[in-house]
Amino acid sequence: MQLITFETVRGPRLGALLNSELVLDLAQAAERQGEYAAWLSSMLALIQAGEPALALVRRLLRASEPAQCLELSSLRLLAPLPVPEQIRDFANYELHVRQALASSMRLRANAAPDPEAALTQLQASGMFAIPPVWYERPLYFKCNRFSVVGPDAVVEWPPFAQKMDYELELAVVIGKKVRDVSEAEAMDAVFGYTIYNDFSARDVQAHESQFRMGPAKGKDFDTGNVFGPCITTRDSIADPYALQMSVAVNGEVKTRTTAAGMQHSIARCISFLSQSETLYPGEILAMGTVGNGCGYESLSFLNDGDEVTLEVEGIGRLSNRLRRGGRGGGGPATTG
Amino acid sequence: MQLITFETVRGPRLGALLNSELVLDLAQAAERQGEYAAWLSSMLALIQAGEPALALVRRLLRASEPAQCLELSSLRLLAPLPVPEQIRDFANYELHVRQALASSMRLRANAAPDPEAALTQLQASGMFAIPPVWYERPLYFKCNRFSVVGPDAVVEWPPFAQKMDYELELAVVIGKKVRDVSEAEAMDAVFGYTIYNDFSARDVQAHESQFRMGPAKGKDFDTGNVFGPCITTRDSIADPYALQMSVAVNGEVKTRTTAAGMQHSIARCISFLSQSETLYPGEILAMGTVGNGCGYESLSFLNDGDEVTLEVEGIGRLSNRLRRGGRGGGGPATTG
Repeated sequence: MQLITFETVRGPRLGALLNSELVLDLAQAAERQGEYAAWLSSMLALIQAGEPALALVRRLLRASEPAQCLELSSLRLLAPLPVPEQIRDFANYELHVRQALASSMRLRANAAPDPEAALTQLQASGMFAIPPVWYERPLYFKCNRFSVVGPDAVVEWPPFAQKMDYELELAVVIGKKVRDVSEAEAMDAVFGYTIYNDFSARDVQAHESQFRMGPAKGKDFDTGNVFGPCITTRDSIADPYALQMSVAVNGEVKTRTTAAGMQHSIARCISFLSQSETLYPGEILAMGTVGNGCGYESLSFLNDGDEVTLEVEGIGRLSNRLRRGGRGGGGPATTG
Repeated sequence: MQLITFETVRGPRLGALLNSELVLDLAQAAERQGEYAAWLSSMLALIQAGEPALALVRRLLRASEPAQCLELSSLRLLAPLPVPEQIRDFANYELHVRQALASSMRLRANAAPDPEAALTQLQASGMFAIPPVWYERPLYFKCNRFSVVGPDAVVEWPPFAQKMDYELELAVVIGKKVRDVSEAEAMDAVFGYTIYNDFSARDVQAHESQFRMGPAKGKDFDTGNVFGPCITTRDSIADPYALQMSVAVNGEVKTRTTAAGMQHSIARCISFLSQSETLYPGEILAMGTVGNGCGYESLSFLNDGDEVTLEVEGIGRLSNRLRRGGRGGGGPATTG
């Protein structure tokens, strides 16, 4: 099942795809059938209501006629969960982490009077090697939950940034309140999957990372966290690691890969995070940039006006244009 | 004006202190006076409603009789803002940062076969020196907004942690939606001030910090983020930097200081953060651990059952006991 949030003059509405072209307005359908519509007032309400609400959506889809549906192409989609309860982003693909660290080392060396000598010295120092702790446990940072926009939103190039980049990530939406959950039971906490493009100001991120507190303004700016186009529920994705993924810039494919190769499985990330810590419905856990899933790994960056298109099998296509001066939305209230 | 959130069988209620002993239930007082009570249904509702709602609170306090008030000592306080919209924590006091880095270096050296030789080498490497970027710009990480508890809540010692610590911090509550706000105008965005105790698992934090993504499980566990006892509104604090601050463990004073000595002023932190990024009412910005504001700076840690008491002039006293196995609340819904 694929669930979307779309814009109307009355505000955001929750929809489900009947097929690749038609969308059922879920609250409206529930009202028509005399069913409980409050569960379907928003994506968060649906997620929080849990299994009974999902069963209701399935009933409504079965009972719906194409004539009662909206055309997907006529709708303006928002991020499926316009203001997530919380967002964390794991670093979880070795190829990405290794190549990103190598790029950071190269940039650091380039800033020295003798770049090649500096590179040799930095390599010997081990400063940019992957530390053992990364292999042992899932590590993450938190993203600004208010900077979220959706499909086709213009992403704003923050004036303080020089080098802008995208990130191709599979993200998991938590659907159940869990704590101290075992790996064996962790997948029951997954409501569904979506795509995440974690736009990043790489020059700012590199500068700030000299102090080890994680990304700050390098990732925190309005419109910088793009999710969409839908949330595909867990039951519709047999094997998340087998999903085909790709990224294209201005139509040119940069990377084709799958979600395979996570250092820590989705179940392990959820279980680890939930140690002595409650996870809540509506939290998002991004599973990390895939190998070659960003430009930074090859030190190539975006230009003003570039359109970045992420695709993940079973979820869809998430396309956004990056623009200088393009206030693509001052936060979730005015998305797009 | 001092605002609190207190627990009742009907759920959390918003109150204002009439004096040091009496509390006005604000929604109840508004109903009694035929005023608009929805603004006073929660701390977040009040903050979001802004200046007109604060003016209403002032009117209600003026019109109230002591007989209509509750005794503060009879109430169970929750965190004043039980689930903040978002929480960031700055590293902003040089003495704290320098001493904390020195402790990290010492621990790293102690793990080597020849600790003194390792210490000399680490000192020479500059790895644990404060980098120039820290002096240039405010840096921060984000905290788990669902791990919040309030005054007198038992703080749970996570079983995965060995070395537990407290942090004495002044925190600012944002009261206005702002973006690209100048330093000159930034203080208008401050709703008020509260106290923050950022309980931390130092062994976990040190281990995880070898990968530069900022704190993860070293700071993320239920009950680990303590705020309170109240929010003192901005108009009641003439000079936040002059506030006396102290921390005591089991009644023994560990540090007495003031909020002076921030590397970046509150206005600078807000202005900097708001570059290309909207801040929303109900977000919390913690202004960082003060010098000697935690045990880690002197490599001393908490013991099971220790009671940590933070005091900040004009805000009050925030006392919490740390307990192994003490599920002090599985998140905000069951605080305390």
